[in-house]
Amino acid sequence: MTMTVKAYGATSQDAPLEPMTIERRDVGEHDVLIDIDYAGICHSDIHTIRGDWGPITYPQVVGHEIVGRVAEIGSAVTKHRVGDIVGVGCQSNSCRTCAQCVQGHDQYCLNGNTQTYNSVDPADGTITQGGYSQAVVTNEDYVLAIPAGLDPAKTAPLLCAGITAYSPLRHWNAGPGKRVGVIGMGGLGHMGVKIALALGAEVTVLSRGAKKQSDALAFGATRYVNTTDQAALAELADSFDLIVNTVSAGLDIATYLGLLDVDGTLVNVGAPSEPFSVPAFSLVPRRRSLAGSTTGGIAEIQEMLGFCAEHGIHPETELVSAEEINDAWERVLSADVRYRFVIDTHTL
Amino acid sequence: MTMTVKAYGATSQDAPLEPMTIERRDVGEHDVLIDIDYAGICHSDIHTIRGDWGPITYPQVVGHEIVGRVAEIGSAVTKHRVGDIVGVGCQSNSCRTCAQCVQGHDQYCLNGNTQTYNSVDPADGTITQGGYSQAVVTNEDYVLAIPAGLDPAKTAPLLCAGITAYSPLRHWNAGPGKRVGVIGMGGLGHMGVKIALALGAEVTVLSRGAKKQSDALAFGATRYVNTTDQAALAELADSFDLIVNTVSAGLDIATYLGLLDVDGTLVNVGAPSEPFSVPAFSLVPRRRSLAGSTTGGIAEIQEMLGFCAEHGIHPETELVSAEEINDAWERVLSADVRYRFVIDTHTL
Repeated sequence: MTMTVKAYGATSQDAPLEPMTIERRDVGEHDVLIDIDYAGICHSDIHTIRGDWGPITYPQVVGHEIVGRVAEIGSAVTKHRVGDIVGVGCQSNSCRTCAQCVQGHDQYCLNGNTQTYNSVDPADGTITQGGYSQAVVTNEDYVLAIPAGLDPAKTAPLLCAGITAYSPLRHWNAGPGKRVGVIGMGGLGHMGVKIALALGAEVTVLSRGAKKQSDALAFGATRYVNTTDQAALAELADSFDLIVNTVSAGLDIATYLGLLDVDGTLVNVGAPSEPFSVPAFSLVPRRRSLAGSTTGGIAEIQEMLGFCAEHGIHPETELVSAEEINDAWERVLSADVRYRFVIDTHTL
Repeated sequence: MTMTVKAYGATSQDAPLEPMTIERRDVGEHDVLIDIDYAGICHSDIHTIRGDWGPITYPQVVGHEIVGRVAEIGSAVTKHRVGDIVGVGCQSNSCRTCAQCVQGHDQYCLNGNTQTYNSVDPADGTITQGGYSQAVVTNEDYVLAIPAGLDPAKTAPLLCAGITAYSPLRHWNAGPGKRVGVIGMGGLGHMGVKIALALGAEVTVLSRGAKKQSDALAFGATRYVNTTDQAALAELADSFDLIVNTVSAGLDIATYLGLLDVDGTLVNVGAPSEPFSVPAFSLVPRRRSLAGSTTGGIAEIQEMLGFCAEHGIHPETELVSAEEINDAWERVLSADVRYRFVIDTHTL
């Protein structure tokens, strides 16, 4: 037996999103039914619906930054209780048996984890549907506990943007004495700035133009560099231990590799459609690395939520109603958001 | 007062090498005069003389894989004694004060170290001249002690090819339980195979065609894969912790990045003239890295020489006389060498 919930989704690649209803599976013994309060809007939602990453099945409801309250739990659930404030991020399940899952790195599940939307749900074989909806049923092991110190209305973006910034910063040891650069200050980038600062690193924002300078400095950034200023960039040569590139548009990666000190790493968390052009000489004489990183595992997301609660880190958000979603998508595409839209799902 | 020694060098970018004489500086208080016995031929020698890496000053004598005997020492020298068998590698000095030098990573000297040839010698302002010669004067701190267990006639290539393979294998922790791939089995690659095996790693040789298969297996390689066999390559997806690319010709780097497991690194020690084309999706979903590495510091070279002596590792060499150098260069360019030419400098 399934339940029917209101949602906002796409019926085709090109159509605007529209109100619809979707089915949620019955609550299994290890499942949690979550009444969704807030759903963040991620650029990935748009890429998925618009077919940028390949064809998908419609109708499709996206959204993988979900915050809500536990409404019901399965008979065997031990991790969450009715009334708890909880979250769901990018993955809603994984194989649990591969070398990566066993280590808690389910974001790198070698058998392909179950994404919160546009994946085949191992529970019932349906296509998973995301958070632009009233409720979701998720296996308890992939439900995050939202710490008391976080404002639920602003927390949803931590579940993708937050962890995608946090994971590489932790993996490459951002912290005291480390010189960190963040390329781009959008949804991901502004989280990278806040988290890297809270980790104790010296943080330089590398962003086109000057329009985000005051925000960057207000967040506490050590320095802001307008990347259209070639002379200012040149002065940064050999000066970073770690650069996190959050920009999905193509950029001259060799220029940014040149900003890394010996043993420095430039890690991409965005996914430009065109390949990077990487001269060997931008890597070899300084033992530099160009890397990539995606989201984080469930255990690491939980750790990140605790870290953000402890350090008072919230995303900068703009709350929108269901009928504003299509406009919000347009504004995401034109980078007109500071810094993440969150849908008030009570308006669905 | 300087001394005049016989050498074999180039008078222009295009001319064959020819016999000549060069000056060596007087032995300063911290200098060692080395009577050279053997000099390895490195592909870098050819790139330098032929102007592939930019214009140089002629006449120029190359060679940065030098083995000989100490003939004279300066008054303050403590590290070497007359009669010792010693070596000189790529760098003959460095600033000694930058963050890299202070850590013993003089190969990454931030002020630009003094190369054994084609560099400005801080001792006298002349252009350094390399090992295709009878003798060289080098600061004692940049002279390596050749351990008793190594055959001097075969040791010269360790000083560039050997250390260039050893350094990244050590830096990225090749050892027991690690799955290491070596792309290309030339001068560098065959050293990579031998050293990675001695470090305890499982080693797969990735080489075009089948002609080096028997050598690879004779060296002890775990596996040999002909890279023209696309199906065989596809079977290796996600299976390496570390791949060392020793090929200077361009290759489809995304294919090889796809062979790395989660957190794997592909490190380039060659320097193709064309940039690599690196799709973000070849890095992001597996947290892979594309890196570069160059030679090694003096302390690490000394460590590597001890390691090779302990494990009985020698390069495969072909001894040539001075008048065979030009032919040997042609054979290097056509990859017709197994696996490194060494000049008997007594024939100069």
